[in-house]
Amino acid sequence: MQHRDLLSRLGLELPADGAGLSVRSPIDGAALGVAPVTPASEIPEVAARAQRAFEAWRSVPAPRRGELVRLLGEELRDAKEDLGRLVTLEMGKIFQEGLGEVQEMIDICDFAVGLSRQLYGLTIASERPGHAMRETWHPMGPCAVISAFNFPVAVWAWNAALALVCGDPVIWKPSEKTPLTALACQRIFERAVARFGDAPADLLQVVNGGRDVGEALVASPLVPIVSATGSTRMGREVALKVAERFARPILELGGNNAMIVAPSADLDMAVRAIVFSAVGTCGQRCTTLRRLIVHKDVRDTLLPRLKAAYASVPIGNPLESGVLVGPLNDKGAFDGMQRALEQAKADGGTVTGGGRALADQYPDAWYVQPAIVEMPGQTDIVRHETFAPILYVLTYETLEEAIALQNAVPQGLSSCIFTTDIREAESFLSAAGSDCGIANVNIGPSGAEIGGAFGGEKETGGGRESGSDAWKGYMRRQTATVNYSRALPLAQGIKFEIAG
Amino acid sequence: MQHRDLLSRLGLELPADGAGLSVRSPIDGAALGVAPVTPASEIPEVAARAQRAFEAWRSVPAPRRGELVRLLGEELRDAKEDLGRLVTLEMGKIFQEGLGEVQEMIDICDFAVGLSRQLYGLTIASERPGHAMRETWHPMGPCAVISAFNFPVAVWAWNAALALVCGDPVIWKPSEKTPLTALACQRIFERAVARFGDAPADLLQVVNGGRDVGEALVASPLVPIVSATGSTRMGREVALKVAERFARPILELGGNNAMIVAPSADLDMAVRAIVFSAVGTCGQRCTTLRRLIVHKDVRDTLLPRLKAAYASVPIGNPLESGVLVGPLNDKGAFDGMQRALEQAKADGGTVTGGGRALADQYPDAWYVQPAIVEMPGQTDIVRHETFAPILYVLTYETLEEAIALQNAVPQGLSSCIFTTDIREAESFLSAAGSDCGIANVNIGPSGAEIGGAFGGEKETGGGRESGSDAWKGYMRRQTATVNYSRALPLAQGIKFEIAG
Amino acid sequence: MQHRDLLSRLGLELPADGAGLSVRSPIDGAALGVAPVTPASEIPEVAARAQRAFEAWRSVPAPRRGELVRLLGEELRDAKEDLGRLVTLEMGKIFQEGLGEVQEMIDICDFAVGLSRQLYGLTIASERPGHAMRETWHPMGPCAVISAFNFPVAVWAWNAALALVCGDPVIWKPSEKTPLTALACQRIFERAVARFGDAPADLLQVVNGGRDVGEALVASPLVPIVSATGSTRMGREVALKVAERFARPILELGGNNAMIVAPSADLDMAVRAIVFSAVGTCGQRCTTLRRLIVHKDVRDTLLPRLKAAYASVPIGNPLESGVLVGPLNDKGAFDGMQRALEQAKADGGTVTGGGRALADQYPDAWYVQPAIVEMPGQTDIVRHETFAPILYVLTYETLEEAIALQNAVPQGLSSCIFTTDIREAESFLSAAGSDCGIANVNIGPSGAEIGGAFGGEKETGGGRESGSDAWKGYMRRQTATVNYSRALPLAQGIKFEIAG
Amino acid sequence: MQHRDLLSRLGLELPADGAGLSVRSPIDGAALGVAPVTPASEIPEVAARAQRAFEAWRSVPAPRRGELVRLLGEELRDAKEDLGRLVTLEMGKIFQEGLGEVQEMIDICDFAVGLSRQLYGLTIASERPGHAMRETWHPMGPCAVISAFNFPVAVWAWNAALALVCGDPVIWKPSEKTPLTALACQRIFERAVARFGDAPADLLQVVNGGRDVGEALVASPLVPIVSATGSTRMGREVALKVAERFARPILELGGNNAMIVAPSADLDMAVRAIVFSAVGTCGQRCTTLRRLIVHKDVRDTLLPRLKAAYASVPIGNPLESGVLVGPLNDKGAFDGMQRALEQAKADGGTVTGGGRALADQYPDAWYVQPAIVEMPGQTDIVRHETFAPILYVLTYETLEEAIALQNAVPQGLSSCIFTTDIREAESFLSAAGSDCGIANVNIGPSGAEIGGAFGGEKETGGGRESGSDAWKGYMRRQTATVNYSRALPLAQGIKFEIAG
Repeated sequence: MQHRDLLSRLGLELPADGAGLSVRSPIDGAALGVAPVTPASEIPEVAARAQRAFEAWRSVPAPRRGELVRLLGEELRDAKEDLGRLVTLEMGKIFQEGLGEVQEMIDICDFAVGLSRQLYGLTIASERPGHAMRETWHPMGPCAVISAFNFPVAVWAWNAALALVCGDPVIWKPSEKTPLTALACQRIFERAVARFGDAPADLLQVVNGGRDVGEALVASPLVPIVSATGSTRMGREVALKVAERFARPILELGGNNAMIVAPSADLDMAVRAIVFSAVGTCGQRCTTLRRLIVHKDVRDTLLPRLKAAYASVPIGNPLESGVLVGPLNDKGAFDGMQRALEQAKADGGTVTGGGRALADQYPDAWYVQPAIVEMPGQTDIVRHETFAPILYVLTYETLEEAIALQNAVPQGLSSCIFTTDIREAESFLSAAGSDCGIANVNIGPSGAEIGGAFGGEKETGGGRESGSDAWKGYMRRQTATVNYSRALPLAQGIKFEIAG
Repeated sequence: MQHRDLLSRLGLELPADGAGLSVRSPIDGAALGVAPVTPASEIPEVAARAQRAFEAWRSVPAPRRGELVRLLGEELRDAKEDLGRLVTLEMGKIFQEGLGEVQEMIDICDFAVGLSRQLYGLTIASERPGHAMRETWHPMGPCAVISAFNFPVAVWAWNAALALVCGDPVIWKPSEKTPLTALACQRIFERAVARFGDAPADLLQVVNGGRDVGEALVASPLVPIVSATGSTRMGREVALKVAERFARPILELGGNNAMIVAPSADLDMAVRAIVFSAVGTCGQRCTTLRRLIVHKDVRDTLLPRLKAAYASVPIGNPLESGVLVGPLNDKGAFDGMQRALEQAKADGGTVTGGGRALADQYPDAWYVQPAIVEMPGQTDIVRHETFAPILYVLTYETLEEAIALQNAVPQGLSSCIFTTDIREAESFLSAAGSDCGIANVNIGPSGAEIGGAFGGEKETGGGRESGSDAWKGYMRRQTATVNYSRALPLAQGIKFEIAG
Repeated sequence: MQHRDLLSRLGLELPADGAGLSVRSPIDGAALGVAPVTPASEIPEVAARAQRAFEAWRSVPAPRRGELVRLLGEELRDAKEDLGRLVTLEMGKIFQEGLGEVQEMIDICDFAVGLSRQLYGLTIASERPGHAMRETWHPMGPCAVISAFNFPVAVWAWNAALALVCGDPVIWKPSEKTPLTALACQRIFERAVARFGDAPADLLQVVNGGRDVGEALVASPLVPIVSATGSTRMGREVALKVAERFARPILELGGNNAMIVAPSADLDMAVRAIVFSAVGTCGQRCTTLRRLIVHKDVRDTLLPRLKAAYASVPIGNPLESGVLVGPLNDKGAFDGMQRALEQAKADGGTVTGGGRALADQYPDAWYVQPAIVEMPGQTDIVRHETFAPILYVLTYETLEEAIALQNAVPQGLSSCIFTTDIREAESFLSAAGSDCGIANVNIGPSGAEIGGAFGGEKETGGGRESGSDAWKGYMRRQTATVNYSRALPLAQGIKFEIAG
Repeated sequence: MQHRDLLSRLGLELPADGAGLSVRSPIDGAALGVAPVTPASEIPEVAARAQRAFEAWRSVPAPRRGELVRLLGEELRDAKEDLGRLVTLEMGKIFQEGLGEVQEMIDICDFAVGLSRQLYGLTIASERPGHAMRETWHPMGPCAVISAFNFPVAVWAWNAALALVCGDPVIWKPSEKTPLTALACQRIFERAVARFGDAPADLLQVVNGGRDVGEALVASPLVPIVSATGSTRMGREVALKVAERFARPILELGGNNAMIVAPSADLDMAVRAIVFSAVGTCGQRCTTLRRLIVHKDVRDTLLPRLKAAYASVPIGNPLESGVLVGPLNDKGAFDGMQRALEQAKADGGTVTGGGRALADQYPDAWYVQPAIVEMPGQTDIVRHETFAPILYVLTYETLEEAIALQNAVPQGLSSCIFTTDIREAESFLSAAGSDCGIANVNIGPSGAEIGGAFGGEKETGGGRESGSDAWKGYMRRQTATVNYSRALPLAQGIKFEIAG
C-alpha cells in the first residue's frame, strides 16, 4: 500500500472505511481512505472560532503574519514531492502538474511574504487646510475558501496565503472529491504554526463534507468573504447567498477559453501550446483551451499537425513519467464528455478521438482520447463549458470576426492569440479585443503566473485572485480624514454656521 | 411662477399636468411640473442604444473622453446657481447645500479629467524569459446609475464622470422624487456633448419612472455595471438581481453613523460638528450623524450645549438665507420619524424636540424640530436607520466600549471620533477600531471630499465611489502575458513536452 | 508692425531698443523688442521672495493649488492662438507646432489639476503592534526652471504646472533667445492669479538674462530644485553646482535619437514618421530623429522615397500655412550644421541636401535644406548631437546589431523601431533593448504625450518631467511611524532595556 | 583565539599580518586579521566583470533573480548568530544590535523576494487611437555600494537585495574599518549562489581598500549607480564625481536628529526612547538622537530622570550580555567627541558625562560616558554632526519654535516628537512640520523598519533606500508608446502632412 506510506508521511492516518468521505483515486478507482466530515450543524461553531481567531490575528502586525506564511512556504518546499504525489493520486493530474501546483503554492507564499510589508493604502491630498486624508486597508474577517477538485491545493493557497497575510482566518471547504490533499495541507500548515509560536488557534479550519456544509458556510453571518472556485451553477448559488447578506464574493467560475491562430503564427509553437493547454490535466483546468479559432489560410496546415500530435500524446497512469494525459475524474465527467461529443456531431461537427481509453487496464477509471471537433459554427454546445478534453475548431477570415467569435460566449476567463504581427496582438489586447480577464499572446490560455491577477468577468464571476492587487479582496478599505486644526471647514466649501 | 423661469433657464419646458411623474416641492408642496417617464418596456432598447454607444466610445482615447468631462465641468460651473437652486426646490435641502452638491459635481469632473490620462494598470515582472506581463484596464460597458432623492445630482456625477472617462455610457434612473434635476443635468450634459463635437449618441440616457423601470434596468443583460444608491432594502434587491447574472454592483446603501466624543475632545468643535452632521439636510444624508456616543465625563457638559444649539437652529424655507434646516421630503418621512421616536420612548428613551414645525405656514410640507433622544442603551430602533433628524445619545466609559457600540450596528458607512489624544484617534482608525468605510477624527461623519473612496461594508453594500481607485469599478481588468521569445516555457517550471 | 499687436494682446509693451535682451525673429531677423533683464545680483532677493511664497503656498491645500493651475489652463486656452503665434515668431517653429506647444501646456494643466487631489503617498504595514507607518509627499521649496529656446513655453509649463500643484513656487530663467514668450506666459499666469484671488505673491518669477543669471539661480541655497533643459554641456555645469549643495536636479539634456527600420516595417508610415521627426522644428527638438538605422534589405527601397520626400518638404516662413520647415535659430546653428556635414563627409559620408535656403529672400535668417547623410559607420560626429536637421543613415543586418548601434551613443533620450513583428518590437522594449528613456514602436522618437514620464539616462541627465510620477521630483518624501501604543518595541526585534 | 573560530565558521581564513587592511577590534584593540585589498588599478577590470554579469543577469526573469535573494535570506538566517557576533567584534556595537543588523538583512531579503514579482511599471491611457502607452522599469547596470563602518552589513544588504532583484550586479566597497564582515557576507552570498545554480559570475564583488579604491569605483564609466553611505564630506565628493558623468547617486549622509518632547508627552516612554536612540551604538548611528528639544514645562521633570538613566546605563564589552553601550570606534572618534564637548562648553553649554571609561581595563579601546549637554541655544557645534554619544538639550515654548529649531540644521535625516496631542503630532508631520525624511511620533529617530523608504533631503543627500519604491533607484524607467494602428496621429493634435 504505497499510498499509505505517502499519506502517513503527510500526517494522515485515515480509516479505510466508516463514516465520512470515501475517496477513490481516479487513476485506478482504488480506495484511498475515508476523510472525516464536519456536519453542517457545526459550521456556526467553526465560524465563531474563526471570528475569535480574527479578533487576535487582525492586531498582529502584518509582517509578523507574513512570517507565518513564510514558514508555510518552507514547509511546502519540504513537502513538495509528497504533496505533489498526493495531488496526482487523489485528483489524477500528472505528477509534473502536481509538482507545479505545489510550486504555485510556494510562489504565492513568497509573494505574500513580500506583501506583508506593503498592503499599501494611500495618503491623499485633502482640500481642507489642517486636514490629513488617508486610506488604509484593514483585515476583513474570516474568509471561506470553497475549492474545486481540479486544483485541490493551489487555489486554496492562492487564497490562504493572501488572506492570512491580510489578517483573515481561513475556513476551507475542499471539493468532496479531494479531501485528503486538504487534510494534508492542514497538517503542513500546522507545522508552520508550531514553528511560528504564538498564532491564535483556528487560523485554518478544514471542513470536509457535502453541499450542505458549503451552504452553511456561505450563509454564515460571521464570514464576510467567500472565495469560491467551481462551476457557474455553483457560483451563481454562492453569489446569491452572499449578495443576500452583503458579504463579499470572490468567484472563479467557468471558462471557455479560446486561441486565435493567425496567418503569421509560429505554428510549431502553436501546436505545442494547443496540446498542452487543451489536453493537459485531461482538459479539466478552468483555463483549458476549449476553442480553436484558426485563420482559414493556416487551418489546413495546422489541423493535420495537431491531429498527429494528439495521436502521439501518451495517455496513462499520471504517476508514471512520460505520461502527459491522466484520467478524467469520474464517470460523470466521462458521460458529460460523451454527451457533448454527441451534441457536437448533431450540430454538424466532425469528431476525431474522444473515446474511452485503457478501459481494460483500468476498468474503474475513466481515461479518454482527447477529442478534436471541427465545427461548422459556434453552436450552443461550443458555448458551453464541458470539463473534458474537447477542442472545438472554428475558422475565421478577419481578425474582427475572430475576436467576435472569441467573445461570443457567456464565460470570460482566458484567451490567447498566436501571431507575430504586433498590430494583431495589440488589437487583441485592446479595449475592442478579447473580453477575458486573461489575454495572452503566443502562449496558451492556461498556466498563469501568480504575479498577475487571475479571474474574469461575465459568467466567470468577476473575482480576482493571486497577484497584482488581488489582496484587496481580503481587506476592507477605510478612508480617514484627520482634522488637526482648530477650525471645522466643510468640504465643497459649504457654509453652515450656527449662531452658537 | 419663479420656478418656471429657473426650469426654463435649465432647458426644461415641462407640462403642468398629464401623464408622467408629478413633482411637488417639499418646501411647500407646490407642483413643479410633470416629468415624462420611460416605460419599462423600452429599457431593452435603451440598453441597446447604450451598447452601441459603448462600442464607439470604448475606442475613443481616454484623454479625449476626459475632454468631454472637462466640458461638462465647465457647463456645470456655468449652471451652478441654477442647478443648485433646483436641487433645493425639488429636494428641499438648503441652497448652500444645493450649491455644495453642484460643487461636488464640478470637483469630480476635474478629478476625472486628470484620471483620463492615468487609468493606470501595471507592467509586472514575469517569471519567464522573453515574456512581458502587464495588466490593463478596459472599458466595461453601459453603467446603470440608480440614484436617491437626497443627493439628486452629485451621486450621478460621481458615477457619470468616472464612467464616461472609463469608456462606459451611462443610463440614469433618478429617484421618482427628483426627476427634474436629472433632466436638467441631461440638458447640461448635452451642451457639453455639442461642444465636444463627435461623441457617439446616447452616452447619457435618463430614464424616469417607477420601480418597474429600475427593475428592468437592473435585469438588462447589456448592463454590466449597476451603481445603486438608496436603502438597504432596495440595495438587497439590486444585489440579488445583479448577482444572478454575474454583473457588477456598486452599492451605496444605508448608514447609521456615529460620533464618539472622548473626554479630551474640543467640545466647541464637537457641538458645531454634531449640529451640522445631525440636522443638516434635515437628517436625510446617508452620512447623517445618527448616534452620539459620549464619554460619561463630558456628557453633562456636552448635552446642554447641544440642546441649546438645537433650539437655535433656524428651520424654514431652504431657499432663504440663514435657514439651516429645511423640510423632510414627504409625509412618509415624517411618519417614519414619529414612529421611530415613539419606539425610542417605548425603549426608555428621552426625546427632546422631534415635533412638526411650521405646519401653519406650510400645511403641505413636513418641517420638523430635529430630535435628540437620550437612550438607556443601543436598542433595535437605534440600530435601524431612520431617514430623519434623530440623534440618539449613548454613554460610554472605555474606548473599547465606545468602539464596540459604534460597530454593533448592521450598517458600515461613516463614523468619527472627537478627541485630541493621538492614541485614541489612531486606535479608532486601526484594524481594531471603527469598522466603517469612512472614519474621521475631529470632523463629523458627513461631507466627504471627492478625493477619497466613498462607501462602506456590511449593509452599506461594499461599493466605493468617487476618489482613490474607485474608477476601477467602472472598468474590466485584463492580465496579459506576451511571449516574444521562440520558446514556450511553462509557469511554475512545469515540464510538458510532446514528442512531435 | 503686426507683431506689435500680437505682443500687445499678450500684455507685452516692450521698448524697441535700450538695455536688456534684444530679440530678433529667426524668421527674418527682424527686431521684436527688448526684454528687461534681472541682474544676477538680484537673484538672492528673488529667491527670498520665492521662499516667502513657499512658506504660504505649502500650507494651501493641494486641491486649492490645483484650482490656480486650472485657471492657468483656461487662460492658456484663451491665449492659445496668440501665444502659439508668438512662439513661432520668436523661436521659428511652424505655427502648427507653436499651437501644439500651447496645447501641451493646456494638457499638463489638466493633468496637474487631477493630480492635485492625488499626490499619493502610502500607508504601509508596520512590523510593530500599535504602530502606523505612512509615507507622505510634502512641498519641497522654490523650483528653478531653466528652459531652452526650442520649446520656449511647453517645458516651463511641464515644470510649473506640477511644481505649483506640488506646493513649490517657480523661478523661471528662459533662454536668452526667447524672453518674450516667457514674459507672455507670466502675463497669462498673472491673469489666472488675479482670478484665483488669494495666492501669495511671487509664485512665478521670470528672470531674463544671460548665463550669469542662470548661474546665480543654480547656486542659490534657497532653491532646492533645479530643473534644467538644454545642452549636455550646460547640464553638466548645473549638475555639479547642484550636487555641491545637495539640491535636486531635474535634467533634460541632449538626445541623439534613432529609428530602427526593420524588414517588416510599414514603409509608408516610416517615411512619414521620419520626415516629421527629422525635419520638424528644423531638427531642433531634443527628440529630433538624428540617426536612421535601416535593415539592409529595405534600405534601397526606403532611401529613395525618403529623399523624394525631403525634396518636397516646403521650407519657408513658419507663419505661413503649408510650410513644414522653418529657419534654424541663428547663424551659430547654421555654422554648426555645416561643420558637422563637413566632418561627416570627411568620415566617408555622402550628404544629400544641407545647404542654405531662401538666402535671397531672408538674408538675415538661416533657412536650410534638411540633410540626409549616408554614413559608412557610426563615427564620432554621428555620436554627437548637432542641433540641426541632419539625419545620419546607417545599415544593419541583425536586430542585436541595430540595438547595439542605437545604444552606442552617450545620450539616452528617445528611440523607436518600425516593425510589424511583435518579437522585434518587444525585444526592442525589453531589458536588453533600447537604453533610452523613451522607446516607441511605429511612431517616431518625438512628440511625446504628457501622460508619460519624459526624459532619459546617460548624458540626457536622468531627469523625468511631465506625466507618470514625475511630480515626485517636486516634492519631498516623508516616512512617518506613529506609535499609538503604550509600549516601545524596537524594529528588527532588538532588545535594549534600561533598568530605569 | 575565539574569534579565529568565528571567522573560520564564516569562511574567513585570513593572515595575521602582511599587506592589506589590518583590522583591530574596537572592543579591546586586539588584532583580528588582515584583509586583502583590491588595488585601485584593478577597478576597471572589476567594473568590466560586473558589466558582463549585468548583460546576463538583466535577462534573467526577475522572479528568478528573487530566488537568489531568497536563498541569501536563508543563508543569513543560518549565519545570523555568527555574523551578528562578527559585527560586534569588528565594529563594536552590542551583540543585540549586531543580531538586529542581521535581522534587517533578512527582512530586506524577504521584502525583495516579494518585489521580484512586482517591479511595477504602469500602463497608461494614451491620447491617440490605436496606441498603447506603458512604462517599464529595466535593470540599470552595475551598482557600487560604499558603506560605512557603523552599519557594516545591513546597509549593504539594503542595497544588494534590491539591486540584485532589480537586475544589477553589486560592487561593494566596505569601510576600511570593517572589511571582515564584508568578506563574511561575500562567503554567505557565495553559498546562496552555489545553491541557485546558474547565476552569472561576479554578481557580487567586494573590493576592500582605501580612499583611492572608492574613488576609482565612483569614477568608473561602467557603474551607473553609486550608493554611498557616510559623512557629508565624503558624500559631496561622491556626488560631484557622479554628477560629472551623469550617473545616479543614492546618498545616505549625515543626520542631526532631534526629538521634541511636548508637555503632554508620556515621559516614561520618552526617557526610554531617548536613552536607546542617544546612547545606543555608542552614538554612532546616522539616526542617533543628537538634539533634545524639550518644552520648558517638562524640562525640569525630564532632565533629572534622563541623567539618572544615563548614569545607570551599563558600559562595557559589547559581547557581554547586559551591556548596552560599547566602545567608540577609534581614538579619532574619541578625540572628535572631546573637541565637540569643549566647544559646547565654550558656547555656554553644561556637560554631564562625556569622559573616557574603562581605560584601565581596555587601554587600547575608547569607551566613553555618554554626554548630556544643556545648551543655551543652537550654536554651530549643535548644528554639526559629531559621531559620538552627545545629546544636546534645548528648550522651547511653542511648537512652531520647536519645529523651527528642529529644521534649522543642515542635515535632514530623522526626527521625532513625543506628544499625546494629535494636533501637535499631525502638525509635526505636515508640510509645515519636520523637514526630515523620517519623522516619528512617540518613537525615537532611530531604528527604522525596512518597509519604509530610508533617507532624507538637505545634507543627508536626498537618497532613499530600503522599502516603499526605493527599488526604482536601481532601475531605469522606459516610457514606451506602441502604435498598432495604420495611422500616424501626432500628440497634441499637431498637423504635419507631407504631400508625398
